[in-house]
Amino acid sequence: MIQRIHHINFIVRDLASAIPAWERILNRPITSRDRLEERGVDIARFDLGQTWIVLVQPTRSGTIPAAHLERYGEGFFLMSLETDSLPDEVRRLGEATFDGPQRRGLDDWLVRDIGIAEMQGARVQLVESGGT
Amino acid sequence: MIQRIHHINFIVRDLASAIPAWERILNRPITSRDRLEERGVDIARFDLGQTWIVLVQPTRSGTIPAAHLERYGEGFFLMSLETDSLPDEVRRLGEATFDGPQRRGLDDWLVRDIGIAEMQGARVQLVESGGT
Repeated sequence: MIQRIHHINFIVRDLASAIPAWERILNRPITSRDRLEERGVDIARFDLGQTWIVLVQPTRSGTIPAAHLERYGEGFFLMSLETDSLPDEVRRLGEATFDGPQRRGLDDWLVRDIGIAEMQGARVQLVESGGT
Repeated sequence: MIQRIHHINFIVRDLASAIPAWERILNRPITSRDRLEERGVDIARFDLGQTWIVLVQPTRSGTIPAAHLERYGEGFFLMSLETDSLPDEVRRLGEATFDGPQRRGLDDWLVRDIGIAEMQGARVQLVESGGT
């Protein structure tokens, strides 16, 4: 079952300048900074109750986040939808709905990316986070 | 106070084809269709617990949603952050943070758009919805 929006990612060129701008608007500090080496990104997170807002800075070229930044510039990157069972959703929707294999996000979240053509150009993923 | 993500808007060219695609992924029907004449959009909404996912189809040119579609194509358009008091947030952030005057969204939501340069290209707005 799709339960809620788990996190929303925004691509930024430079976390050092983006973090204070977002902290001012959201009126709260980031909760953590992380690095996802295999994804090629540095990350800062805000806790907005049920949803994380995640700022993502690509750290090298040749990755999906870096390609997105190059093509579209800064801004919205991805919406992640929480499910209580990723295998159940893959069975319901079919493998052809997804783009690439299961991978691990922050905090060992299990994620599958929905093919970009499925959602009229919106980058959407499913996540089974175990509650984080 | 910024409380949660109230809604997220995605721009689509054609609601008639986008609605069944999103209904399949989200595994639920839309809750309503609406038209915002002055904004030049037709709208379909999904209820995702605390957050609405809103599909927006521009119906005429010369509007901000139509310009966004033309420039960026389909996909993410806007994130709306719920506050319990829009006037308090405008006082806290200052008028210069916002782009344009207060306006009314669906269901008489009161909204103010944050200037696009403030958030590194992400279109973000504040909303006082009275709980809807």
